Amino acid sequence: MTAPSGTYDVIVVGAGISGLSAAKLLKASGLNPVVLEARDRVGGRTFTVQNKETKWVDLGGAYIGPTQNRIFRLAKEYGIKTYKVNEQENLVHYANGRSYPFKGSFPPMWNPFVLLDFNNLFRTMDEMGKEIPREAPWRAPHAEEWDKMTMHELFQKICWTSAVRRFATLFVNVNVTSEPHEVSALWFLWYVKQCGGTMRIFSTTNGGQERKFVGGSSQISECMANELGERVKLQSPVYRIDQTGETVLVDTVDKQTYRAKYVIIATPPALNQKMHFNPELPPLRNQLISRVPMGCVIKCMVYYRENFWRKKGFCGSMVIEEEEAPIGLTLDDTKPDGTVPAIMGFILARKCRKLADLTKEERSAEPQPPPVHYEEKNWCEEEYSGGCYTAYFPPGILTQYGRVLREPVDRLYFAGTETASEWSGYMEGAVQAGERAAREVLCAMGKIHQSQIHQPEPESKDVPALPFETTFWERNLPSVGGLLKLTGVSAVLCAAAAASLVLHKKGLLPRS
Amino acid sequence: MTAPSGTYDVIVVGAGISGLSAAKLLKASGLNPVVLEARDRVGGRTFTVQNKETKWVDLGGAYIGPTQNRIFRLAKEYGIKTYKVNEQENLVHYANGRSYPFKGSFPPMWNPFVLLDFNNLFRTMDEMGKEIPREAPWRAPHAEEWDKMTMHELFQKICWTSAVRRFATLFVNVNVTSEPHEVSALWFLWYVKQCGGTMRIFSTTNGGQERKFVGGSSQISECMANELGERVKLQSPVYRIDQTGETVLVDTVDKQTYRAKYVIIATPPALNQKMHFNPELPPLRNQLISRVPMGCVIKCMVYYRENFWRKKGFCGSMVIEEEEAPIGLTLDDTKPDGTVPAIMGFILARKCRKLADLTKEERSAEPQPPPVHYEEKNWCEEEYSGGCYTAYFPPGILTQYGRVLREPVDRLYFAGTETASEWSGYMEGAVQAGERAAREVLCAMGKIHQSQIHQPEPESKDVPALPFETTFWERNLPSVGGLLKLTGVSAVLCAAAAASLVLHKKGLLPRS
Repeated sequence: MTAPSGTYDVIVVGAGISGLSAAKLLKASGLNPVVLEARDRVGGRTFTVQNKETKWVDLGGAYIGPTQNRIFRLAKEYGIKTYKVNEQENLVHYANGRSYPFKGSFPPMWNPFVLLDFNNLFRTMDEMGKEIPREAPWRAPHAEEWDKMTMHELFQKICWTSAVRRFATLFVNVNVTSEPHEVSALWFLWYVKQCGGTMRIFSTTNGGQERKFVGGSSQISECMANELGERVKLQSPVYRIDQTGETVLVDTVDKQTYRAKYVIIATPPALNQKMHFNPELPPLRNQLISRVPMGCVIKCMVYYRENFWRKKGFCGSMVIEEEEAPIGLTLDDTKPDGTVPAIMGFILARKCRKLADLTKEERSAEPQPPPVHYEEKNWCEEEYSGGCYTAYFPPGILTQYGRVLREPVDRLYFAGTETASEWSGYMEGAVQAGERAAREVLCAMGKIHQSQIHQPEPESKDVPALPFETTFWERNLPSVGGLLKLTGVSAVLCAAAAASLVLHKKGLLPRS
Repeated sequence: MTAPSGTYDVIVVGAGISGLSAAKLLKASGLNPVVLEARDRVGGRTFTVQNKETKWVDLGGAYIGPTQNRIFRLAKEYGIKTYKVNEQENLVHYANGRSYPFKGSFPPMWNPFVLLDFNNLFRTMDEMGKEIPREAPWRAPHAEEWDKMTMHELFQKICWTSAVRRFATLFVNVNVTSEPHEVSALWFLWYVKQCGGTMRIFSTTNGGQERKFVGGSSQISECMANELGERVKLQSPVYRIDQTGETVLVDTVDKQTYRAKYVIIATPPALNQKMHFNPELPPLRNQLISRVPMGCVIKCMVYYRENFWRKKGFCGSMVIEEEEAPIGLTLDDTKPDGTVPAIMGFILARKCRKLADLTKEERSAEPQPPPVHYEEKNWCEEEYSGGCYTAYFPPGILTQYGRVLREPVDRLYFAGTETASEWSGYMEGAVQAGERAAREVLCAMGKIHQSQIHQPEPESKDVPALPFETTFWERNLPSVGGLLKLTGVSAVLCAAAAASLVLHKKGLLPRS
């Protein structure tokens, strides 16, 4: 037997934002935690690289915005500033081989049928979302029905025009790095809802992509790791968790054994599979962790000598529906002081799979005009993430397995952004989940009351959220189906009126 | 560094039928293999238990039938006899709160609409299957379209009657221990096809459930393990595979390190996740292994003092559609000599999830009349299977990731029944896959030619396959939709004929 490498109150598995938030809170509560990280760096799915070409670049999670109050609180504590992603000039929507400049969150639709269809789709998704409890989507009144359906099926039911179906596909691709036919409708509608709805999740200004951290998002994890000091062990992938004894034993690939009263697993649920459990996990958890795959994305940054798009009146945001274009969404990635002009782009889902096996050099041949520098990160190749941004639920899984997602297993507790109920899938969700898991442990130790586990977060004073106003027309315009019914009815009414006029003239109707 | 526990030509991970078949063939070819097994027994998803109440009982994979020639070859080599599952008397179909005795593979449908609908559904599934290449389902002409669809969607498109939709659901539940809305239509249609079609997969007589091994299915693995002797290492779960050096290093949880030129991983694809890889797996394989969950089943055996069902004219086979009934399918499990009267039943998919967290005692309270003995195995709780019978592909995965399922990664090769192309998911597929992977390694070592890797298997002389004859009516009856069109057309024709007759009589039609 290897001698135990240390005895702790709590072992946290994973030094992403979620695990570090948990450990930080535990330490602040007077406990003795240790964090075991598989990689040689902290940050998990956030990953800031510094070099002379880019100064710094976020190869992973980067965007934050209003209502993400926990991550703003952490940033403020560490003095990490945020800046607004440039959205001054026009955005561009590419569709059907043409480009359309626009302003606002969503590209406008000019064809009136498409406009009705578009308006109805997004309104319907938000309305369906209202039915779904953030904390327990499996309890939604239509949970079973919606979980049996993929988003592809739902779009086929709701959408009348191919233009809206195409945009809807991109909307799923961009938000959850997967395809509409891969994801449960219940899960996707829940996901959008717990981010605050279709406008909040997709918008730059006033939405999830409003800001970035000056200096990069890894700083959040690095500051927490600094605070934790020697308690963070890098290059320590956990492969075994033994709960059969009085203390929990945790073995790492570098052949260390750690011992603790409690364990918090702060990895994506699928990565629980990397560990051998003694005793085995309960049946539903054992199966859950092979049912929630991680999305598929390559994040690319192309660097130019100058910010030529702004001079042409474009902010750098592009929403790209072309099947042949590898990139689905771009945002300006120039530094806040105007230096290092750059465009960030996502290669998403099916397009990511097409390009996943190419080398960086092969992929970097793509951008036009040719950039002066190129950075990218293919998250599908990361063993200790499995993919990015987050886990998705295929049809049927959320209703059958969702309730065990954050259910403790003896002395094991579960964090990670996938277990959050606000901005799950984002850095914000990671903090919520980590702190919640830490308080679950504090509660189990008798240090806090159960009612204190879930804590709301006061709104950030620096980044307040504005409501999204809907117009009378957005609320009340009919769907295409509704319009056809309406016009059908009026056509019948018109025809009937005309007929009665004729009949009346011919004296064939009885006079009143 | 721990000293290497031995140097071998090939390390095989997993001592199920697939891994043992691979090692057996490698040894017979003069190589020096070792098999590392996580459990304290061989056999994987086959698991025969002996006790005084049952003599022996197969808690896992048990059934074999015609066209499964490789497993019959192995059984014959070891002198393991087979016997026919009893199907002498009537089968019973439970639906709508009533029971209907029947003979044959499928319950007959009495309502003529239901009959047409049923006939059309199964004919259509077999016809679609013909388009799908066994070896490469992603190359089917409609692969993309069918992979975007779940079987639930396909049933909604094809089936007109709720009776057939309900039976179709059971058909999916029984064959792949998952729900129609969970599985890709392309994958399920491929699965049925590579078993020989809807009749072959579902039938007892002349189908996949025709026979069992006298003494239990574990004997196959045990005989292979005996032959391999000290080469099979039990309680050796692999947690790390390092391909960075000249030989591949494999670490086990019991803190041994094995060394070899090649590795064959003969586990379900999802269990590749239990291993930490250096270097990381390629992106598509890294993602594949979290996208192919294992099905969900509890296998139950209830033992009675006597074989009362046979006396009443029932063989013991029941096809049960009632939502409240936990069990979906039963078969007689009495020993071939008539002793130890028993019924085997499967608790499948959604019903398995409902009952998965109960104890054996709670579940055994179910059967009526009360049995004298009860055996069961909940495969969802098995860490080193993940579920049973086999992996399923949710929508979108087979076309995007299928091609890497058995693609070698440097010196890693992949076996396991999921990688087979004939009876994948069955013991037969396990043998096919194991032997194919072994020959891939032999080919890589230059010992055989590439053309020798895939080898057809001659038909078993003891268990020849009979063709399934379809009747003229089965081939030519219309679907319900077709019938409605036909009758619609004839109604129009009738009306037209009547109208022309009237017009003719009135002299309003020009005479010819």
